[in-house]
Amino acid sequence: MQQYFIKGRAEKIVQLTDKDTIKHMFQVMRLTDQEKLVLVFEDGIKRLARVSDSSAYEVELIKELEENVEMPVEVTIASGFPKGDKLDVITQKTTELGAAAIWGFPADWSVVKWDSKKLAKKQEKLAKIALGAAEQSKRNRVPEIKLFDQKGELLKQLKQFDKCFVAYEEAAKAGERSTLARELAGLSPGQKVLFIFGPEGGISSKELASFKQAGAITVGLGPRIMRTETAPLYALSAVSYALELMSS
Amino acid sequence: MQQYFIKGRAEKIVQLTDKDTIKHMFQVMRLTDQEKLVLVFEDGIKRLARVSDSSAYEVELIKELEENVEMPVEVTIASGFPKGDKLDVITQKTTELGAAAIWGFPADWSVVKWDSKKLAKKQEKLAKIALGAAEQSKRNRVPEIKLFDQKGELLKQLKQFDKCFVAYEEAAKAGERSTLARELAGLSPGQKVLFIFGPEGGISSKELASFKQAGAITVGLGPRIMRTETAPLYALSAVSYALELMSS
Repeated sequence: MQQYFIKGRAEKIVQLTDKDTIKHMFQVMRLTDQEKLVLVFEDGIKRLARVSDSSAYEVELIKELEENVEMPVEVTIASGFPKGDKLDVITQKTTELGAAAIWGFPADWSVVKWDSKKLAKKQEKLAKIALGAAEQSKRNRVPEIKLFDQKGELLKQLKQFDKCFVAYEEAAKAGERSTLARELAGLSPGQKVLFIFGPEGGISSKELASFKQAGAITVGLGPRIMRTETAPLYALSAVSYALELMSS
Repeated sequence: MQQYFIKGRAEKIVQLTDKDTIKHMFQVMRLTDQEKLVLVFEDGIKRLARVSDSSAYEVELIKELEENVEMPVEVTIASGFPKGDKLDVITQKTTELGAAAIWGFPADWSVVKWDSKKLAKKQEKLAKIALGAAEQSKRNRVPEIKLFDQKGELLKQLKQFDKCFVAYEEAAKAGERSTLARELAGLSPGQKVLFIFGPEGGISSKELASFKQAGAITVGLGPRIMRTETAPLYALSAVSYALELMSS
């Protein structure tokens, strides 16, 4: 069944206003009166609904659904700005894999330089990608997208997390393999976790020092070298495996 | 340090013949005499080498290296032919994530229909992608690429594996979450594992029955719905996490 995210709070009769949603619902999917769909408001609860008046873009809620596919912990992915459209790929795939938030920041070794105008446009594009991927993967939440202008702003955020990890290739090369498993085993439901990833060139030693000083720990993600857009997918899959599959 | 895969067995003096390798080594990377590099022959052992005569494309081996980044089990990914260039993405990413082999097969719900000529061309392209990704991620092996003409050929292969898993969305929806974790915990080093994935439309019930009859079991990969090119990345990350990070 088709699922849509709707801004605001749930009301019995929903008057749709978002142009993209209306277009997708009635032009792309051609939903007609009485057809059923799932709406998700900002409370993250899925609700079964039916089209009550397609000409007036009106939908009526039927009942709440129990389905919750969110991770037991909130995982934020922070990627040093990578080249090209890799942040698009990261956004789509990490949304499918359950990320609560997807952040970007200008890393020392980021090749791209985005001014605030470009950042705003990019953020808008990524938010649309996240919305589409969240609808497709039937998430209860759309991941938050945030692109930082300055690395300092990201550093200030670290204290809000219960655990901050820096994916560090040198740690992996040195044979460090068990930290992540040990740390994930120690997490409790509802906790907030941050994973930081470097761009193509990796994390600089200066950056690593500042992340560590802010409380982050380095983790290896196995012995193979992954591209910058692949490592976050490994991290989210590992969290899901450890906290969703293993503990069932 | 740059790494290249070389066909055949290791000899003290290596006379390079592969055009792409020669081009990358001497035109793209501009390696000169005495510069060091890593060569990997078909035995999967990494060897430190140096350019002994760049004009004659001659390289001399120095010593064997101990580094082995292969998974403790051999994982084969079999994807029902997906749309567009998704098999390219699957090949690149699953190579980074440690796949031993990447197979494709015509699934009931595959939209694309590839004849044997197209299959041969596609297989050649995927082999190049796998080679490039294996060099970048410093693998000891290049994954085998095989595209099956008929599903029956794939079915015949199942008996060579110690475990065959079918990623099945309905299993995930029904709340099945612990089978994969239990099965991975029971694997021993050197064993061979196959993961089968449907194309965009999923696995048909007839296919599922035939895979099951051939000994495969269904596994859920968490509660979220993943795109056909994302699920194999989850599976490989899970295997790595379970067998490389947790057991260290």
